[in-house]
Amino acid sequence: MIAEILCVGTELLIGDVVNTNATYISKRLSEHGIDVLYHSVCGDNPERLEKCLNHALLRSDIVVTTGGLGPTYDDITAEICARALGIVMCDSDEVEKSLEEYFRRSGRVMTDNNKKQAKIPKGAKIFTNNYGTAPGICIEKNGKIIVMMPGPPREMKPMTDDEVIPYLSKYTNKVLVSSNVNIFGMGESSVETKLHELMLSSINPTVAPYINDGEVRVRVTASAENENKAKELISPVVERIKSELGDVVYGVDCESMEKKLVELLLRNKLTVSTAESCTGGMVSQLITNVPGSSEVFGFGVCTYANQAKMKMLGVKEETLEKYGAVSEQTAMEMARGVKELSGSDISLSLTGIAGPGGGTEQKPVGLVYIGVCAGEKCYAKKLLLAQHGRSDRGFIRTLAAKNALKAAIDEAGEIKQSL
Amino acid sequence: MIAEILCVGTELLIGDVVNTNATYISKRLSEHGIDVLYHSVCGDNPERLEKCLNHALLRSDIVVTTGGLGPTYDDITAEICARALGIVMCDSDEVEKSLEEYFRRSGRVMTDNNKKQAKIPKGAKIFTNNYGTAPGICIEKNGKIIVMMPGPPREMKPMTDDEVIPYLSKYTNKVLVSSNVNIFGMGESSVETKLHELMLSSINPTVAPYINDGEVRVRVTASAENENKAKELISPVVERIKSELGDVVYGVDCESMEKKLVELLLRNKLTVSTAESCTGGMVSQLITNVPGSSEVFGFGVCTYANQAKMKMLGVKEETLEKYGAVSEQTAMEMARGVKELSGSDISLSLTGIAGPGGGTEQKPVGLVYIGVCAGEKCYAKKLLLAQHGRSDRGFIRTLAAKNALKAAIDEAGEIKQSL
Repeated sequence: MIAEILCVGTELLIGDVVNTNATYISKRLSEHGIDVLYHSVCGDNPERLEKCLNHALLRSDIVVTTGGLGPTYDDITAEICARALGIVMCDSDEVEKSLEEYFRRSGRVMTDNNKKQAKIPKGAKIFTNNYGTAPGICIEKNGKIIVMMPGPPREMKPMTDDEVIPYLSKYTNKVLVSSNVNIFGMGESSVETKLHELMLSSINPTVAPYINDGEVRVRVTASAENENKAKELISPVVERIKSELGDVVYGVDCESMEKKLVELLLRNKLTVSTAESCTGGMVSQLITNVPGSSEVFGFGVCTYANQAKMKMLGVKEETLEKYGAVSEQTAMEMARGVKELSGSDISLSLTGIAGPGGGTEQKPVGLVYIGVCAGEKCYAKKLLLAQHGRSDRGFIRTLAAKNALKAAIDEAGEIKQSL
Repeated sequence: MIAEILCVGTELLIGDVVNTNATYISKRLSEHGIDVLYHSVCGDNPERLEKCLNHALLRSDIVVTTGGLGPTYDDITAEICARALGIVMCDSDEVEKSLEEYFRRSGRVMTDNNKKQAKIPKGAKIFTNNYGTAPGICIEKNGKIIVMMPGPPREMKPMTDDEVIPYLSKYTNKVLVSSNVNIFGMGESSVETKLHELMLSSINPTVAPYINDGEVRVRVTASAENENKAKELISPVVERIKSELGDVVYGVDCESMEKKLVELLLRNKLTVSTAESCTGGMVSQLITNVPGSSEVFGFGVCTYANQAKMKMLGVKEETLEKYGAVSEQTAMEMARGVKELSGSDISLSLTGIAGPGGGTEQKPVGLVYIGVCAGEKCYAKKLLLAQHGRSDRGFIRTLAAKNALKAAIDEAGEIKQSL
């Protein structure tokens, strides 16, 4: 089966929006053994969309579209796809009911143009949209399949995973299964150097490193006739990677460091608290984004001002005067302060210079101290996080937050071992 | 002139790499009045590339390709493009010299396969690559233009800006300028209903709404012979949109709500503080991500536990017992507490049920109270943020945070007016 992704939207053509939809769908289809050979994009224009679609149907068996399913007059995808396969449009009670339900639950008023979305190709398979009003639609005729999904990624992604991939799986007889080894604290080239031999010698499964937001993950992908057989191929390779890389591996198939941390804390019945300056609440925000985190996290402070550090955490004025807010000493007093305030088992503090302003020769942009208290011990780590002298505020903050999370993961593991 | 971007690379089709090249080139061409009507992507496969290219040349005047210009055997773009226009390949002394120079400068050894890159279509215009080995190439014949650029964004971007755009500017005599009206607190279909007449009647500038992460922006795009004339066309339409939509418009061409808030606070010499429960530090994190925010923000607390609400903010135990942590009363006590603690002009609090667990019939997932204190007044807002009964924790938190930022923007504006 040859597949093609056809994304509809003028915003893509004027460069206002990056086409992450094509990437996401391609990845998911490839993983399930469906080869994507083409991407195409056209604007919200009926004639051009029709031409693009007909061209796609000539060279591909499956055409997956995104966009143009909304309630407005320029949302034309469903009608044009139906016409391309010679299918008429009709009103769908199923879709209309689910639209009414959607509006009722979100407490909004359904406008007349929303009703347009209940008009779908006759006999189409409907994919539920739990995050918006436009349903997904699949039509098939003469060996050609068109899958239509809404354009917003937060609607399209769950629909792809929960509905479209399971539905299309009947057209393929192999599965691709991947496992990801999660790494923090070692750069991509070092990871690659350490795993060079393994990467070269691995054909099935394949081994490839990826970098994202300061983390490296090594993806191990096996192709087999079923999931279990693929997993049997993957497992020994994952174990070898873990033993080659050591401590920098913080997990396998972890969604995120914060999720890993919350899981560890829950399992070991531990709590954590945070005192943040340069990250401004990023660490607490990440932790509390994990469902169930209220069991392990209760107190966080964002002490951006020195006054706040003194008032809320009991950081001493002398410490701030003598060593400055960005110092090992302040970081440790912040961590001790929030541990005492909260009574948590582990506490984290972060103070640093995220830039772009505020750097000096002694304390450059990217200098961050992390304070960690765990049980009886308390220490600070000095980090230099600026990239090639460039002060990228968002990235420095993200790296700082991830370093703190990694420290907490390590401590949570260690406390468990010492029990 | 109609343009098409054709990106070559299997890594795009398996979803390993996001196609930011198409976005970048589209944006730059659009800004310079060249309409991009199509994107397409194909893999490193000669037959399919040839077909895609020929199809592109049928419907477009300018085809801009990226990728496939490297030194390896699967780098086939130059040869196939030359063949498509009936141009022969020949060795270029100019390119060979610049390759030698590049390798000399970077202290690397030139391999034999690099010499392949000196073979280019006869009579081609060469674009210098200061960041890699593959030169850019432009060939023209019978009114068709093919521009080839290397795939890596750090090579392609400067080449686009410094060489390709100036070279192509001879084919256009208009510019496209856009302005975005930023809206929060009204859904896309309601915005469209309110602006329906205007959207239908607008040809230059065009008016189109976009939705992203709970915000709507209306883009107004004008085409004119120069930037000033385009802006003259845009300005009255933006004013009309602002007056039609009223209070939900929080700005024009704003990068983000938090940036708008920090700008307003700086301009009016005001400060803000935050007390967050369900958002866990998201609001403070957003505010402190804006450079210069330390002037307007010093104190934030993340009181996830009831103990924390009492201890840090002085929320009364009776209030929590009688009304619960997620209540108007608690939200107001939280906002008052952090205002007193910090001495800020405005304070924000958030308490709610982000889900997926924790909801009840009386207090469902998505119920969030926002407390706002500004000057002497203090009030709470009740929000119902769940989408379609499915509890999307991340989105509920994002909407809650944005509602709080919007309230602060409104208050910062109002305090200014009352001064």
